[in-house]
Amino acid sequence: MTPHFADRLTSRCEQVGAPVCVGIDPVYERLPAAIIGNGPTGVPDNAHEAVEAIYQYAIGVIEAVAPHAACVKLQSACFERYLWPGLEAYHQLVHYAQERDLIVIGDVKRGDIGLSSAHYAAGCLADSRFDDLGRVDGPDAVTINAYLGDDGIGPFVDMAASQGKGVFALVRTSNPGGDAVQGLHLDDGRTVAQAVGQLVAQLGSGPGLVGQGGYSLLGAVVGATKADDITQLRQIMPQQVFLVPGFGAQGGSASDVKACFKPDGTGAVITASRSVIYAYEKNTTDDWRSAVEQAAIEFKQQVRSISQ
Amino acid sequence: MTPHFADRLTSRCEQVGAPVCVGIDPVYERLPAAIIGNGPTGVPDNAHEAVEAIYQYAIGVIEAVAPHAACVKLQSACFERYLWPGLEAYHQLVHYAQERDLIVIGDVKRGDIGLSSAHYAAGCLADSRFDDLGRVDGPDAVTINAYLGDDGIGPFVDMAASQGKGVFALVRTSNPGGDAVQGLHLDDGRTVAQAVGQLVAQLGSGPGLVGQGGYSLLGAVVGATKADDITQLRQIMPQQVFLVPGFGAQGGSASDVKACFKPDGTGAVITASRSVIYAYEKNTTDDWRSAVEQAAIEFKQQVRSISQ
Repeated sequence: MTPHFADRLTSRCEQVGAPVCVGIDPVYERLPAAIIGNGPTGVPDNAHEAVEAIYQYAIGVIEAVAPHAACVKLQSACFERYLWPGLEAYHQLVHYAQERDLIVIGDVKRGDIGLSSAHYAAGCLADSRFDDLGRVDGPDAVTINAYLGDDGIGPFVDMAASQGKGVFALVRTSNPGGDAVQGLHLDDGRTVAQAVGQLVAQLGSGPGLVGQGGYSLLGAVVGATKADDITQLRQIMPQQVFLVPGFGAQGGSASDVKACFKPDGTGAVITASRSVIYAYEKNTTDDWRSAVEQAAIEFKQQVRSISQ
Repeated sequence: MTPHFADRLTSRCEQVGAPVCVGIDPVYERLPAAIIGNGPTGVPDNAHEAVEAIYQYAIGVIEAVAPHAACVKLQSACFERYLWPGLEAYHQLVHYAQERDLIVIGDVKRGDIGLSSAHYAAGCLADSRFDDLGRVDGPDAVTINAYLGDDGIGPFVDMAASQGKGVFALVRTSNPGGDAVQGLHLDDGRTVAQAVGQLVAQLGSGPGLVGQGGYSLLGAVVGATKADDITQLRQIMPQQVFLVPGFGAQGGSASDVKACFKPDGTGAVITASRSVIYAYEKNTTDDWRSAVEQAAIEFKQQVRSISQ
């Protein structure tokens, strides 16, 4: 039997020494010159060529960060932008990263209801085996949107439970615009994000969903930039692992991030994307992979000093 | 210049005689025997074969409903479930339906922020031309999730505006579970859905976004089952076309649906999925397409009698 997702995640974080996730959001125009050359670039004319460039870049990022990061988070939109060739490459990268012991989060932010959610869970989360495609690995976890409520979330949780995988529901996103919905105050004093957090906590506490370490396979996305909400969300969701974007570049401080962890230093995985994967843009080294690896190491050390 | 999406939609509804949309959510196990035979079926072993069956079925549905429906809504999850072959077939169906003058809504329910939303808008909504893939038609409109606020919605609206297309933001979904978030009451008396509706109304009123008929390219999904909310949502969003699921099978009544329209009978498109596309299951006719066409005609007549 596959170990519980949250236990696997905790164990992997201990193995690398810090609960860090590198977000891989590859944009063609920002790829290293070693991959796309130095000339002027725009949206490429050829989807397969663009996907091949993004794929090679992502392979390099995965290799550079694999010894240092617990997880990678693949931004599905960056691949879907190139239609079906992009989707195929995304799944190949999921496999490549898993082979290197990384826990892979598919940042797909899907959300529908009933059977449609079940279809998304099958396509975006589950491992598949088709005679014509062979084995296609789904990521270890996906992000989902909770706005549609329990009959949207349930099918993802069921699929995750059956495959030893996980789900992270968007509770409080890191972007400024999220305030207009998630930051609204209810008539009982909670924010909308807190109400969604309570729903997630409840749905994640069902039979078989909580691992030996006390965390559910249903986690929550909580942005580091939302200091006002984090402390309460941590109390509302004691069994949720927080996937935390927004640290650093987006303005989340060390103390904001610290509030995402429990006192024992567990319960959160901090993600960084552009500050790591585009580190070569601010670096004079000839080897872009070294710049990415160095940034991953620094990120890990930063998070370790906060979480401990 | 491409005419404004909302004007095109209104004109198409007038052309067919009623504001109706048929939702195409093809599930392999429910396909007609003429396509998959009468034997026991399960999840198919071969993705291309499954996709081919779904594709042929969807072609038949599109042909049957094209003279009667203003729009078709393709449920992306049903195709993504079969990975990249599914995604390619989905885009072929978009093209096939558009060729038959149907307005095509891609029910993708995407939602992210900033650049990721822009990537989704490029992959899910825009028409593309790649040297290797040829011209790939995006649907005329997509559904999106508004939980991430304006910086999630904005990139879709921008893309739609540049291509004469539309966007429908989820405001009040038809499923029971949606109440747990969308039905919550704020401290100012509004529901969460009403607050999201106001955000949508505001974002949809920007320069160039409203067509000659007074409707914005940014519409709203409002479930027919949410009678308590519909009347107020209609007032809050005077410039939004409502895309209305939940009529009939899910429990939305004729009077609930009527409240989605303005007094002049404009402002809403009513969708039906399973009751139309699986009509052959309750019908003894040998020709499944005739059963689907007959159900589409009856659905159109029903909606016409309500909207007028």
